Amino acid sequence: MALVVQKYGGTSVANIDKIANVANKVIRTKEAGNDVVVVLSAMAGETDRLIGLAQKAADNPDGREYDSLISTGEQITVSLLAIMLNAMGCPAKSLLGFQVRILTDKAFKKARILTVETTAIQNELGKGTVVVVAGFQGVDPDNNITTLGRGGSDTSAVALAAALKADVCDIYTDVDGVYTTDPNICSKARRLDRITYDEMLEMARAGAKVLQPRSVELAKKYNVPVYVKSSFTDEGGTLVTKEEREMEKEVVSGVTYDRDQAKITVVHVPDRPGVAARLFTPLSENNIVVDMIIQNASIQGHTDMTFTVSRKDIRDAKRIISDVLKDVGAEKLEVDDNVAKVSIIGVGMISHSGVAAKMFATLAREGINIMMISTSEIKVSCVVEAKYAELAVTVLHDAFGLERES
Amino acid sequence: MALVVQKYGGTSVANIDKIANVANKVIRTKEAGNDVVVVLSAMAGETDRLIGLAQKAADNPDGREYDSLISTGEQITVSLLAIMLNAMGCPAKSLLGFQVRILTDKAFKKARILTVETTAIQNELGKGTVVVVAGFQGVDPDNNITTLGRGGSDTSAVALAAALKADVCDIYTDVDGVYTTDPNICSKARRLDRITYDEMLEMARAGAKVLQPRSVELAKKYNVPVYVKSSFTDEGGTLVTKEEREMEKEVVSGVTYDRDQAKITVVHVPDRPGVAARLFTPLSENNIVVDMIIQNASIQGHTDMTFTVSRKDIRDAKRIISDVLKDVGAEKLEVDDNVAKVSIIGVGMISHSGVAAKMFATLAREGINIMMISTSEIKVSCVVEAKYAELAVTVLHDAFGLERES
Repeated sequence: MALVVQKYGGTSVANIDKIANVANKVIRTKEAGNDVVVVLSAMAGETDRLIGLAQKAADNPDGREYDSLISTGEQITVSLLAIMLNAMGCPAKSLLGFQVRILTDKAFKKARILTVETTAIQNELGKGTVVVVAGFQGVDPDNNITTLGRGGSDTSAVALAAALKADVCDIYTDVDGVYTTDPNICSKARRLDRITYDEMLEMARAGAKVLQPRSVELAKKYNVPVYVKSSFTDEGGTLVTKEEREMEKEVVSGVTYDRDQAKITVVHVPDRPGVAARLFTPLSENNIVVDMIIQNASIQGHTDMTFTVSRKDIRDAKRIISDVLKDVGAEKLEVDDNVAKVSIIGVGMISHSGVAAKMFATLAREGINIMMISTSEIKVSCVVEAKYAELAVTVLHDAFGLERES
Repeated sequence: MALVVQKYGGTSVANIDKIANVANKVIRTKEAGNDVVVVLSAMAGETDRLIGLAQKAADNPDGREYDSLISTGEQITVSLLAIMLNAMGCPAKSLLGFQVRILTDKAFKKARILTVETTAIQNELGKGTVVVVAGFQGVDPDNNITTLGRGGSDTSAVALAAALKADVCDIYTDVDGVYTTDPNICSKARRLDRITYDEMLEMARAGAKVLQPRSVELAKKYNVPVYVKSSFTDEGGTLVTKEEREMEKEVVSGVTYDRDQAKITVVHVPDRPGVAARLFTPLSENNIVVDMIIQNASIQGHTDMTFTVSRKDIRDAKRIISDVLKDVGAEKLEVDDNVAKVSIIGVGMISHSGVAAKMFATLAREGINIMMISTSEIKVSCVVEAKYAELAVTVLHDAFGLERES
């Protein structure tokens, strides 16, 4: 008997019929002899509806109240699934963040999970009950409802799987696995049977929408096997797991792109120790995630510093950096949101030279100018003009031979 | 400085504009130097939408899950009001049932409040914060979310006012007070400036929709002055309070009707001790409220027993009584849901004879047949055919001279 955590996204629970489909899948898993913990998102569109209400109520809604408001979306789907399962003869119980006790910090709108209590869930599992947990939400030490940020239900699922020492965490979504690149823009994209945590992490960070990066980090940290599957077919699926010998054969396993990027340049910064800290500390204190950071070589004691943030954070980032601009002696701020990030990812890269060079040459051949470059052990990312994103993905997918059957 | 509890119903928070209207009223009360606790219902129509979802999910939804589902309606309005108040410069914090800790029993869908913790609220009030509490909901000793049944937000408001020893509990609704009868069916209806708890209780029980009877019981028990006001005008209002000398002058203060009634007759019951208990104990165990009970004189050791229940409970009541029918030796069951209850109410009745007789004569003069009669110290109720409800109200309102200015 295995303990299975299953997470279903918003499109999988978009209406009563689809929730019935989920109920059937849950019952099948249960009847196969497993203990089942289900994690749900809100119905597709519901969170946006609630955010719309909040924004009609105030330009800049109070974070605590915002979280309490938008957490109702998951409360609705978990109750509905539990109602349905019980009516179908499968004992089930929904648990909200405060009922499980998924303890988070106090960073409203993007809280991080501190601990997950397992007693309540294990008591129910012991009685043969299917436990249906509201994704995306937790509760801080003062009993305030918090939410984990967009895509937070993936993180909820993996955190639960880790805390419960589950055998597997199935992430059901509207695609049937992880692809070498986005099939919508590259018809040659191929589904991967397996991918390592690190590759998945880089792909998620680099813009692949399948899994939330934080959920992959957690899965890696606690070695939780994550299976990405379609909730509409029983075929396919990609297993995200730790690195194994045989997986090294491919140099590059995926190409990703991310249009949700904006580039901010702080012009003519004095090249003194502590300047970077004074720029980036207030950003992180305001929970703004900075992705790439590039500092040009210093000329006459001054340099330009460029970084990228998510487009939704542009306004806040501009305000925060403007406040410290004079303080650090910089000249001005330039913002460009007409950019995209294109990345190649693969654990094989570490032991193969020339991968980055091949990427640059491929882009150059198409006349695509590279604005920023950032590399990690298993990833090379380039920021290019937004209009070139699809072309770049297609030519890189070809150049690294990803379309071939492996 | 007074402590004011204000409750706003579903029509008062039906959309963002109306919630803004509530925010203004709250700020005015706060700026007048009061501590303010606000209790909200769900947006008009939202609870019905959620019930609709539950019923699409199952014919007979699990009670625990049903309550968790429908409690989201109030969670949404309290967050939105708190967002708005904060944005308007008035510090505010929403609290849900589990956050206040409004402890109830485990009777899902119609839970009763056991205790209300005041620490969290008083801490916030001490900081000058307006506290916005979700009405209609509580939490049982096992941290399950419970709801108090329809109209439960009135009960929440009065329970909070009692626990906090508030100076007044304002119930804002879509009418501007308590009337001698329903103005929609009797144009001569007159608004009362004051009414006693007992009269209000009888009026609420007898079908007047202004206040939930349980909330009036609570108000009476803890002597909480309740002010019924319109959320759309600043005029009018009716104070519900304890009896005072001057209030005795009127014999009858109101006429009510209730169409939400069904009459169930258990035919040919053996007239033995314990029979009534065996009929009504299982009904009360299933939380079905029995209103009037009439037992005819016994003929040859058998009698007929007739009682009324709310129409929504007919199906359950039939099933429960059918189960014990043979057991008590009764012949059969007859159900009539084509009935209405018409009542006259007034504390003055106790010291005036002939009030009931005048009621019966007035109805007889119009050819209205009385099917059941029940009396209390301050009320006489008659069950009549449903089609006569409006006529009965109008002629009784005239007969007892309620239209005159007092």
